[in-house]
Amino acid sequence: MNYFSSDFKLGILGGGQLGKMLLYETRKLDIYTAVLDPSEQAPCKIACNDFELGDLMDYDTVYNFGLKVDVLTIEIENVNVDALKALEKKGKKVYPSSITLKKIQNKAEQKLFYTDNNIPTADFSRFAYADELLTAIKNESIEFPFVWKSARFGYDGQGVKVIRTYSDLEGLPSGECIAEKMIPFKNELAVIVARDVDGNVKTYPVVEMEFHPEANQVEYVICPARIDESVAKKAQLIALKVSQAFEHVGLLAVEMFQTQDDDILVNEVAPRPHNSGHYSIEASYTNQFEQHLRAILGLPLGDTQSKVAGIMVNLVGEENHTGAVVYKNIEKIMAMQGVTPHIYGKKETRPFRKMGHVTIVNEDIAKARSIAEDVKNSIRVISDS
Amino acid sequence: MNYFSSDFKLGILGGGQLGKMLLYETRKLDIYTAVLDPSEQAPCKIACNDFELGDLMDYDTVYNFGLKVDVLTIEIENVNVDALKALEKKGKKVYPSSITLKKIQNKAEQKLFYTDNNIPTADFSRFAYADELLTAIKNESIEFPFVWKSARFGYDGQGVKVIRTYSDLEGLPSGECIAEKMIPFKNELAVIVARDVDGNVKTYPVVEMEFHPEANQVEYVICPARIDESVAKKAQLIALKVSQAFEHVGLLAVEMFQTQDDDILVNEVAPRPHNSGHYSIEASYTNQFEQHLRAILGLPLGDTQSKVAGIMVNLVGEENHTGAVVYKNIEKIMAMQGVTPHIYGKKETRPFRKMGHVTIVNEDIAKARSIAEDVKNSIRVISDS
Repeated sequence: MNYFSSDFKLGILGGGQLGKMLLYETRKLDIYTAVLDPSEQAPCKIACNDFELGDLMDYDTVYNFGLKVDVLTIEIENVNVDALKALEKKGKKVYPSSITLKKIQNKAEQKLFYTDNNIPTADFSRFAYADELLTAIKNESIEFPFVWKSARFGYDGQGVKVIRTYSDLEGLPSGECIAEKMIPFKNELAVIVARDVDGNVKTYPVVEMEFHPEANQVEYVICPARIDESVAKKAQLIALKVSQAFEHVGLLAVEMFQTQDDDILVNEVAPRPHNSGHYSIEASYTNQFEQHLRAILGLPLGDTQSKVAGIMVNLVGEENHTGAVVYKNIEKIMAMQGVTPHIYGKKETRPFRKMGHVTIVNEDIAKARSIAEDVKNSIRVISDS
Repeated sequence: MNYFSSDFKLGILGGGQLGKMLLYETRKLDIYTAVLDPSEQAPCKIACNDFELGDLMDYDTVYNFGLKVDVLTIEIENVNVDALKALEKKGKKVYPSSITLKKIQNKAEQKLFYTDNNIPTADFSRFAYADELLTAIKNESIEFPFVWKSARFGYDGQGVKVIRTYSDLEGLPSGECIAEKMIPFKNELAVIVARDVDGNVKTYPVVEMEFHPEANQVEYVICPARIDESVAKKAQLIALKVSQAFEHVGLLAVEMFQTQDDDILVNEVAPRPHNSGHYSIEASYTNQFEQHLRAILGLPLGDTQSKVAGIMVNLVGEENHTGAVVYKNIEKIMAMQGVTPHIYGKKETRPFRKMGHVTIVNEDIAKARSIAEDVKNSIRVISDS
């Protein structure tokens, strides 16, 4: 197939920041793109060839959009899976497949999938309704503390809560959920696996999420993770096992815990380019977005090694700031060595809204870490009033 | 100034492949862009915010376009300079300035500028008409062989011819020209200098053009140049001197000859991102396009050092092929280590048309050079029929 002609069309469900970064790479390879997104302000609106406004959860919208393209991919998981299934039946190439996506969309099913496939994951119980969870607590079949996760539509920390007492249960949604054993982990790690249509795979190096000591928030994504080689190897092998089990095509970002005993437990996966791989734009021989395209278009997978160490800092809206966004001190961080800001192009900031990210690259990972801290302490995402 | 809001507009004159690569970086920084180009098929048409169809040499078109933006830059030199001058008087920021551009647009003036500023360059004579050149040859005030260059609108090897005998003079345009002494150079080198509004400068490493031994065509642009450190230093210092003389803002690509005696002679300059800097997208801490933006927008200049060695191969249309383009064996080269194709998005190929480029990066420059040769021997830009 000649992807480098306008006869070929790649469809992308979702027009957010991940899609935007994917579009850089489609431009580089001159691939014709169509994007479907519900927002007029979608960052993807420019840089794609065709932009269509529409609901990603609506069967007809997704189905009709999919009919117009040759290969369909996603930049967000919450899309109408039945429409994807129907498109596959029509012979359209859909990556990730409707089967993979269906499993991943429901966190309870995702967890069951791990246990069914002998993939290590934290112990959990599944509940069809929050009421059943309450009964289980009363029966002492589960104990405080545990992690509550909504089965559906968890995204970016939404739908996840640590439950330590009865009062933490107040206000939880009533729907399907899981209660997961709390893992006092040493590190949170992630591995991105690229897999093509023929089942060829390549794994990116293990990255490490460094948490703020007090706020319990990820501050830095660091590549490579500062862990023992043996643990890194184990994490990569488990990520490959997950990849094999899903038989996905494209990228699969596998988030994992490294326990106090250096066991690896799979937390969750995303079948697409992922925040934990943003460092790759500056640090890797083949960045994750180009790699996703290579995988879904049947092109050879690229080199996943790094040229230099990379650290990523998320740019999130500051508390108490809502309105037209200002990136205060951006000039200051751009004067620092090896610092590249990525501004997603959202016009309005809100507390904790993901507005962009900053990558810091350096031959010396310790130097990169030190500059990353300077970046973190300098840049502020605030409103202009 | 807050560049990261839609109040600010960057204007780009020209919508070709250089503009397209510049647009990736404007997207990364979420800078609002307007592009003026005479072609409906301009590669920049998508990925800019506003696209305007118009003649870059027409005073009114350029002037009216410039009025709508805050900062105006170019991706091609052949634009109406008088309009730029008028825009500067109106208080618009124009980088490169109309003065710099005027000097560069005329190759005779450019050469005189070098001699006026004690910048080493090959000896030359200037002629208002080709007839005067003929008289000079007959008078023996200039001798065969020499290099004829049209003073105006030289671009990509157009308007340059080696004259060895009277018959080579046949069919030359009649206008203003120069006759330049032929330099039996050891190497053709280039240095890109970034200079901001305050006169801060940063130079990229010296790159080397490697010629095909028989065809006398540049085959590879290699960074860093495989030359003595002392020669590299000299080339960079001369590039800085040229930069200082022009007082340009933005990038200045300085093309130079390394003579048999290791002297450096300036050949010509381009006040914009340049083919000799394409390697920087994959190899440099700050690529040339981001650097150009940093310079013209008053942001701090980025690190010009390389992460890894980089080699660039131009993708040009093969002889005897005209029509809808096919990139034969692109899958094959994408399977090679550290290889990234850049397809400019021109739908039709023609013999020698610039259709894209390929970058090869590697820690080891000899390895990169070897892979570059494999790329060159594999990829073919042909028509589909």
